[in-house]
Amino acid sequence: MDLTAVKNYLTDLQQRIVARLAAIDGKAFRSDSWQRPEGGGGESRVIEESGVFERGGVNFSHVMGKSLPPSAAVSRPELAARSWDAMGVSLVLHPRNPYAPTVHMNVRYFVAHPNSRSVPVAAVKPRHEAKQTAMRRTKARRRGAGDEGDKAAGSQAQPLWWFGGGMDLTPYYGYEEDAVHFHRICRDALAPFGADCYPRYKKWCDEYFYLKHRQEPRGIGGIFFDDLNTPDFKTCFALQKSVGDHFLDAYVPILERRKNMRYTERERDWQAYRRGRYVEFNLVYDRGTLFGLQSGGRAEAILMSLPPVVKWRYDWQPAPGSAEAKLYSDFLIGKNWLGTAS
Amino acid sequence: MDLTAVKNYLTDLQQRIVARLAAIDGKAFRSDSWQRPEGGGGESRVIEESGVFERGGVNFSHVMGKSLPPSAAVSRPELAARSWDAMGVSLVLHPRNPYAPTVHMNVRYFVAHPNSRSVPVAAVKPRHEAKQTAMRRTKARRRGAGDEGDKAAGSQAQPLWWFGGGMDLTPYYGYEEDAVHFHRICRDALAPFGADCYPRYKKWCDEYFYLKHRQEPRGIGGIFFDDLNTPDFKTCFALQKSVGDHFLDAYVPILERRKNMRYTERERDWQAYRRGRYVEFNLVYDRGTLFGLQSGGRAEAILMSLPPVVKWRYDWQPAPGSAEAKLYSDFLIGKNWLGTAS
Repeated sequence: MDLTAVKNYLTDLQQRIVARLAAIDGKAFRSDSWQRPEGGGGESRVIEESGVFERGGVNFSHVMGKSLPPSAAVSRPELAARSWDAMGVSLVLHPRNPYAPTVHMNVRYFVAHPNSRSVPVAAVKPRHEAKQTAMRRTKARRRGAGDEGDKAAGSQAQPLWWFGGGMDLTPYYGYEEDAVHFHRICRDALAPFGADCYPRYKKWCDEYFYLKHRQEPRGIGGIFFDDLNTPDFKTCFALQKSVGDHFLDAYVPILERRKNMRYTERERDWQAYRRGRYVEFNLVYDRGTLFGLQSGGRAEAILMSLPPVVKWRYDWQPAPGSAEAKLYSDFLIGKNWLGTAS
Repeated sequence: MDLTAVKNYLTDLQQRIVARLAAIDGKAFRSDSWQRPEGGGGESRVIEESGVFERGGVNFSHVMGKSLPPSAAVSRPELAARSWDAMGVSLVLHPRNPYAPTVHMNVRYFVAHPNSRSVPVAAVKPRHEAKQTAMRRTKARRRGAGDEGDKAAGSQAQPLWWFGGGMDLTPYYGYEEDAVHFHRICRDALAPFGADCYPRYKKWCDEYFYLKHRQEPRGIGGIFFDDLNTPDFKTCFALQKSVGDHFLDAYVPILERRKNMRYTERERDWQAYRRGRYVEFNLVYDRGTLFGLQSGGRAEAILMSLPPVVKWRYDWQPAPGSAEAKLYSDFLIGKNWLGTAS
């Protein structure tokens, strides 16, 4: 594991994405550096009330601590006493045009450091497991360590690390060509890492971005992965880089197609109503949001994911057969956008 | 404990409050009865897009189950296997006029029934503790039973019950006379139950309705209580009734003073921005919301608490010295509105 290499990649990725989005919008992103009293900090790049983006943020953060916050330790109690580093780039873009979808992308890296009073041996994955391919991991296996260079696997001195991330699309009006394009690029990003990688991470995304109390997916999905640490650091880092590097290809063509479409107050109203679901998901379910708020992250940066204007309306349904109703019937259904032979 | 008496009180309270609010608004509340597949249901009374109320709900629900949902059982693991009844009236009113504050009131009653495979004896409060006055209970003591008519205290056949509730005010523009009036009525409601009751429940309210990630109170407070089951059912029920019965006196005079004040887009914008805090609190912290969503409650009824139009804006502060800035400096400070001799 190499914190510096990951950090350099992430800060460069943030810069590349911001440069491209600013060129599309025509307005510069504001930049805010911040520090966290307990250690670390970040840089928030934010755009608001602009032509293309009504609100959006592309944030880098690198925070560290002496023990894990509850949201992380609940599924890894043996790690609670470890010091840790967490870093990532997280972005959410809310375009003004209701025909242009909201998008989210995140790549993150987590290390729990060796610590004299920590980790029982059982928490460290046996060597033979670490040699399995990344492609065969299931999300049920949630911890482990493994770096090809490490000779001390199984010892208490082993650092534990993992990558996570993904991207997903949340349209207000559904377009099949957009959904197919987005998923195709997601598949391309994962293709070098095994043919079963995309379908597994696609399914994981559908399961993660799901509003249980509405029994409704947040959007048309994408890919999601977490706890990735096999077969080795190099491969996992390469996978993370591929996901980050494919983001602009996945989103920009869709944004270009939709950002200048004509709309009226009706479409804006629907967009504001549907944005309520985005708020509900992020504040009730999203682990990243809860981790950030619990670990003393910068609230204004974390809550950049919330849309600029949102409406709630009681027990409201779009008229049957309308373009709005089609979002529910044809798009928010966990569909396999690339067909069965994906 | 008497489920029927509590239920009759709650449904009557809902009706009285709705009748008075509808008379003020001039528009009738819509009524939706709903049933829950696992047992129970409720009646939602809702008003939207009206003259005085932009969105509001006065909801009654009575739900039941065979085992406790995680949000309730986490602090009461010994109760997880018990069947239960939960009932309450919960209201949130979002006036259209930004000078009129949002208000929340809730009264609720919970019973965990005797159950052959449940409750260790240690979970039942010893008789001598049950005889302490309600006024001396602290929120750290979170469970117990005690009904003067019960002779079986300490046995496994003991039902556990408790009352909870309160009311709190969330202004967008602060008025000292409103805050003092609201707190005075809260104090009046609790006066028959001991002079130390109001200050304790006032403090509990300030602690509960607090946005940790903003280090900011939700509003100017009010009263909050939970786990109330001493000295006996009759006294606890009387306290709950007094809180419910004082709600209209606490809120209506404030609403009448503010509902016709002139305002511009500036005040509406600030109201929408501040409403974002209301959403953040209810979705991230509120136990009632989480209990409702986890226990299969009706999402549209639970989420009636969310405001109709909300805005988020990055790292925004009102101009120093403005009426908006005064809300932070003079009102969202956990102040003792009735003076030290309250």
